[in-house]
Amino acid sequence: MTGDAIHPAWLPDEAWQAVGSRRVLVRADGPLARTVMQEATRATDHHGGSVGDDGRFDLVLALTDTVGLPDTAASVLAELDYRSGRGTLGTEGFALARRGGVTVVLADGTAGLLYGLFHVVRLGEAAFGAALPLDVHHPVTARRMLNHWDNIDTHPVMGQVERGYSGGSIFWRDGGLTPDLDRIRAYARLLASVGVNAITVNNVNVHATEAHLLTDRLGDVAALADVLRPYHVRVHLSVGFNSPTALGGLPTADPLDPDVRAWWAETTRQVYAAIPDFGGYVVKADSEGQPGPFGYGRTHAEGANTLAAALEPFGGVVHWRAFVYDHRQDWRDRSTDRARAAHDHFAALDGHFAGNVILQVKHGPIDFQTREPVSPVIAAMPSTHLAVELQVTQEYTGQQRHVCYLGPMWSEVLAFTPWGATRPTVAEVASGVAHGDERAAPGRRPSGQGGLVAVSNVGDDPFWTGHPLAQANLYAFGRLAWNPLLDPATLLDEWIDLTFTPAATADPGLLRRTLHEVMDGSWQVYESYTAPLGVGFMVRPGSHYGPDVDGYEYTPWGTYHFADRDGIGVDRTRATGTGYTGQYPKPWSDVYESLASCPDELLLFFHHVPYTHVLHSGKTVVQHIYDTHFAGAERVALMRSNWARLGDAGLVAPDVDARVRERLDEQMRCAQEWRDQINTYFYRKSGILDAHGRRIH
Amino acid sequence: MTGDAIHPAWLPDEAWQAVGSRRVLVRADGPLARTVMQEATRATDHHGGSVGDDGRFDLVLALTDTVGLPDTAASVLAELDYRSGRGTLGTEGFALARRGGVTVVLADGTAGLLYGLFHVVRLGEAAFGAALPLDVHHPVTARRMLNHWDNIDTHPVMGQVERGYSGGSIFWRDGGLTPDLDRIRAYARLLASVGVNAITVNNVNVHATEAHLLTDRLGDVAALADVLRPYHVRVHLSVGFNSPTALGGLPTADPLDPDVRAWWAETTRQVYAAIPDFGGYVVKADSEGQPGPFGYGRTHAEGANTLAAALEPFGGVVHWRAFVYDHRQDWRDRSTDRARAAHDHFAALDGHFAGNVILQVKHGPIDFQTREPVSPVIAAMPSTHLAVELQVTQEYTGQQRHVCYLGPMWSEVLAFTPWGATRPTVAEVASGVAHGDERAAPGRRPSGQGGLVAVSNVGDDPFWTGHPLAQANLYAFGRLAWNPLLDPATLLDEWIDLTFTPAATADPGLLRRTLHEVMDGSWQVYESYTAPLGVGFMVRPGSHYGPDVDGYEYTPWGTYHFADRDGIGVDRTRATGTGYTGQYPKPWSDVYESLASCPDELLLFFHHVPYTHVLHSGKTVVQHIYDTHFAGAERVALMRSNWARLGDAGLVAPDVDARVRERLDEQMRCAQEWRDQINTYFYRKSGILDAHGRRIH
Repeated sequence: MTGDAIHPAWLPDEAWQAVGSRRVLVRADGPLARTVMQEATRATDHHGGSVGDDGRFDLVLALTDTVGLPDTAASVLAELDYRSGRGTLGTEGFALARRGGVTVVLADGTAGLLYGLFHVVRLGEAAFGAALPLDVHHPVTARRMLNHWDNIDTHPVMGQVERGYSGGSIFWRDGGLTPDLDRIRAYARLLASVGVNAITVNNVNVHATEAHLLTDRLGDVAALADVLRPYHVRVHLSVGFNSPTALGGLPTADPLDPDVRAWWAETTRQVYAAIPDFGGYVVKADSEGQPGPFGYGRTHAEGANTLAAALEPFGGVVHWRAFVYDHRQDWRDRSTDRARAAHDHFAALDGHFAGNVILQVKHGPIDFQTREPVSPVIAAMPSTHLAVELQVTQEYTGQQRHVCYLGPMWSEVLAFTPWGATRPTVAEVASGVAHGDERAAPGRRPSGQGGLVAVSNVGDDPFWTGHPLAQANLYAFGRLAWNPLLDPATLLDEWIDLTFTPAATADPGLLRRTLHEVMDGSWQVYESYTAPLGVGFMVRPGSHYGPDVDGYEYTPWGTYHFADRDGIGVDRTRATGTGYTGQYPKPWSDVYESLASCPDELLLFFHHVPYTHVLHSGKTVVQHIYDTHFAGAERVALMRSNWARLGDAGLVAPDVDARVRERLDEQMRCAQEWRDQINTYFYRKSGILDAHGRRIH
Repeated sequence: MTGDAIHPAWLPDEAWQAVGSRRVLVRADGPLARTVMQEATRATDHHGGSVGDDGRFDLVLALTDTVGLPDTAASVLAELDYRSGRGTLGTEGFALARRGGVTVVLADGTAGLLYGLFHVVRLGEAAFGAALPLDVHHPVTARRMLNHWDNIDTHPVMGQVERGYSGGSIFWRDGGLTPDLDRIRAYARLLASVGVNAITVNNVNVHATEAHLLTDRLGDVAALADVLRPYHVRVHLSVGFNSPTALGGLPTADPLDPDVRAWWAETTRQVYAAIPDFGGYVVKADSEGQPGPFGYGRTHAEGANTLAAALEPFGGVVHWRAFVYDHRQDWRDRSTDRARAAHDHFAALDGHFAGNVILQVKHGPIDFQTREPVSPVIAAMPSTHLAVELQVTQEYTGQQRHVCYLGPMWSEVLAFTPWGATRPTVAEVASGVAHGDERAAPGRRPSGQGGLVAVSNVGDDPFWTGHPLAQANLYAFGRLAWNPLLDPATLLDEWIDLTFTPAATADPGLLRRTLHEVMDGSWQVYESYTAPLGVGFMVRPGSHYGPDVDGYEYTPWGTYHFADRDGIGVDRTRATGTGYTGQYPKPWSDVYESLASCPDELLLFFHHVPYTHVLHSGKTVVQHIYDTHFAGAERVALMRSNWARLGDAGLVAPDVDARVRERLDEQMRCAQEWRDQINTYFYRKSGILDAHGRRIH
């Protein structure tokens, strides 16, 4: 795709109408302040407002240390001082108020001003209407990161972006850095508008070509950093644990070897010489064939700490992924349990990681399934900085051919309370506030070192994300990373209002209503026609798209359902199964252990039950399977007809409409295929007829 | 692989000991006679014999029109004249006798002399011992062809050779003709030694690059023909039906369009200008995505006849593949039956194909499964030339990682009598003698136009075939194509005696005995641990290696088993199923229709039965599955230990021994995987325990 086809996503010119038609004053200096100025200027140029200091303003954006603020702004500052004291907003926070017909944004640093400006854009006309009391905004997690699984080279099967469903990489083209820096700039702007402040620009599976980004191809990374920096987005790199041997020519990559440590130190020094605000390294070690410390008889902590030591002088961090398991498992051996792996590997290492190591834990114990319990690792490492990893790219949730708005899933995960009904939540663990006391140890664990990380869904597709509606997932991730308490439905409203231009129509609410109808429950709809009751997988091996109930059942990948003629599910109880339930603290260790209390939606993740087992819902397992699969496909048909109304009414751009219709057609086909394969599979196995006599093949 | 690593296969210098230590007289002229001279000279140079005319001979090879033969040869010629008349040996036949201490080979043409020489090599010392009565040899089928599914380019997943398990192509390397013509020469020699006289040098799935072999890259084909010609091997080409549009720039490839016909005529004329003995075209049309006449509303006959008309002036032929089916089938629709497809498409066209069209029919109705019934097309087209296609490359029979000697399978197929207990056999249909009368129509159907065709198993692997023991399949194919009545066990003896140098050992029979133990029943062993009772597939989709019982069950490929908790199999009866049994003439239409008479080994191909159905063997279906799968894996263990004895005794070359051991280890692993997956699958479905209490997971 070429640069001239960039879709504005949720930042079309129309979204800037309210700001752009106003008189704007910016009182700050520095690179990010220049970005604020440029954005304001661009908007006012387009919509007839103005930027400058002629004594009359509708919007003031100013640093809190500005001398000689206009009166209204000065009064807001005074109130802020009174309430919390200047300098408490942090580097990224901002305060907003409207009084006396002037909207005021104050921040301690220029990043806060940038985020404040985008907040005003989100508010739109509401930012310039009635008075707004002083409100303070700051991110709950310090690092809000996207991991791009992009490669420079193109893999013949996987494509250029591993698990990417939006075309090629926006960073890399024809074996090197893309010449289309405009697109990257547009991307940085989108990220800043939702608060994402860090990205990796290469795949966690670091292949031969991409390994060189750390050393002789570092210039490309520096060039990317230059483009991202004006939007307060820092670059991180995925690096191979074996870099000292693969790149440095050393005979070993043993993390305790002095030469290895020296190599990492010197290499990292050179990285910072080129990129002073470099974020750090992301490492997938000893997992799925990647090299790691086990090869040298060292622990993950020893491995991570060596890299951390190299980064520490420069303020960099290591994201060390906890996605480690035996991918050469024997399906015959029911005692091995992939779900246990991360906890088995890492829990005992709690307290052994350096202060600038962040253990990056997938939200569930398996691998981004449509439904998983929250990973027990999140509750197991109070003395370790944790980042929770989500997957914006829809690997297991329809691959951007299906509508699947993931905000509600993430919201559920982030609000989960690993220790039961009381706080802290997962979000609080990730943000570092959950274990604040432990983190106060001086000089060791800077607070807020954790964070939220997600695998990106963006590529060089004209709509960025393949499915235009998948833009909402990127939007929602950034917003939830900023504030996990935000309501996913509200985020959808924000995204809709920014993205779609209101049209003069007989039914002004039609667009928003329809998008909610199509998207609100789409995650549950996807869940309903795919693998049932938390059992997971049942996808085509390799591609992970479309149904194949036994596709992984007899493979070494450790993802089984154990369906036989009598029942289905994985017994992970302590009493009779793999003992995985014991990795949770109370009450969850008991809730999941007991058939009586295990939630229906996770039943088959934790228990092997007969098809005739009666759920809390009152249905048998097999009837639940039939019902949800018939209903799921019907819901997709409804989504499709609902969307068609929009398109027929001319309420969306023709190119977006065409793309969404094409994807909905495929979703319909695929949902029917799931319905029929799953229902037939379980009918053939159980011999139990559908209670409603519907057609099962 | 480089040329200097060519393994001699079954023609090591030691195989020429008997010929090479004799005095040899060759009385013939021409290119093939020169080859005979060169081979004799090479052998005698190595083993101390001589070639020439000094009046004393042990071996005379002479054309029947030679004037002034030595006395003994003249007396043999006289007897031949008396018995059958000179000139009845045909272009490829020969007569052999030994009398008065002289071995005499006579032929009407030089190709016969070449084949006669190789026959003497096969006989070894037996050709020079006691007197041998006059014996006439000629091939039963005129065209004995190998199809190479080789591409010039390398496919990222499939590799360079489609369904090739022996490395890259021996013809194409680095995007063009290989520089290693020595290897091709060695290959031609091997082919000639077993009587193969035609090959295609590119894949039947003709991709963009390979399409150009017909036109602007024809020079490469001509160069190959030059190397193959001295061994009486003709080159054929796989061509795309859409060549007139893809290569010729025409707006259509409609076979009835005059411009299209002119394009084929002119293109073919140029082919013959470059390669005067060019064999003809092989076409896969309207199958698995390949273009064909259906795109223009034409029949297969109309399509084939257009190409045939272009070839006819030059004596060339079209091999038109009958492998045509709906590969976008709906698994829900049990009325569609892929097994029916070839007969449904072609039977009605009998009599409509030109005399130089050969309909190339796979031996079974599906696709080279371990066990299939013989294709009903073979009995359905008395007025059409048929070639029967076998698969030497072990796509579905272990991919040259498993020992699977296919001679017995092919022998069974070739001896099958499509019209019941009486002749003709499949081999006789393929050779053209079955329907001799119809073929006598003047100028239309040259006799013997059919033939045997097989997909090659050769690549640039040092042992030619990946698994060294897979060389025997190539050997056996050539010999059975020459004479389908040959006993596969005898062919194995021939191959063993040629290939392996006898070693001085305490047990001189150990080598031969062990190879028979390992190879004789290896096809049945493979069958026993894979898909049971003729049901087919159950392989991993795509690669077709290793078990995946449901791998194709819900796909569009039309290869299903319909296993449910009660039973398994495909109902292809007329009474209640797809009606496929009706495509056979009597008695087979009735034999297969009836549960009482259907052979056990094809039961699930024709019938859906309960797991408790009792076979003719007295076992239930499910117990048969358990028993054969336990036994199959045990047999592989025995094969492995038997082979180890050979290697431990130093009776095979270390490189061959190492390679075979490595493959047997993999076969063992894979056979256990098949055993366990199949047994577990059917235990989970049926709930029926193994009668002998063996371990099922």
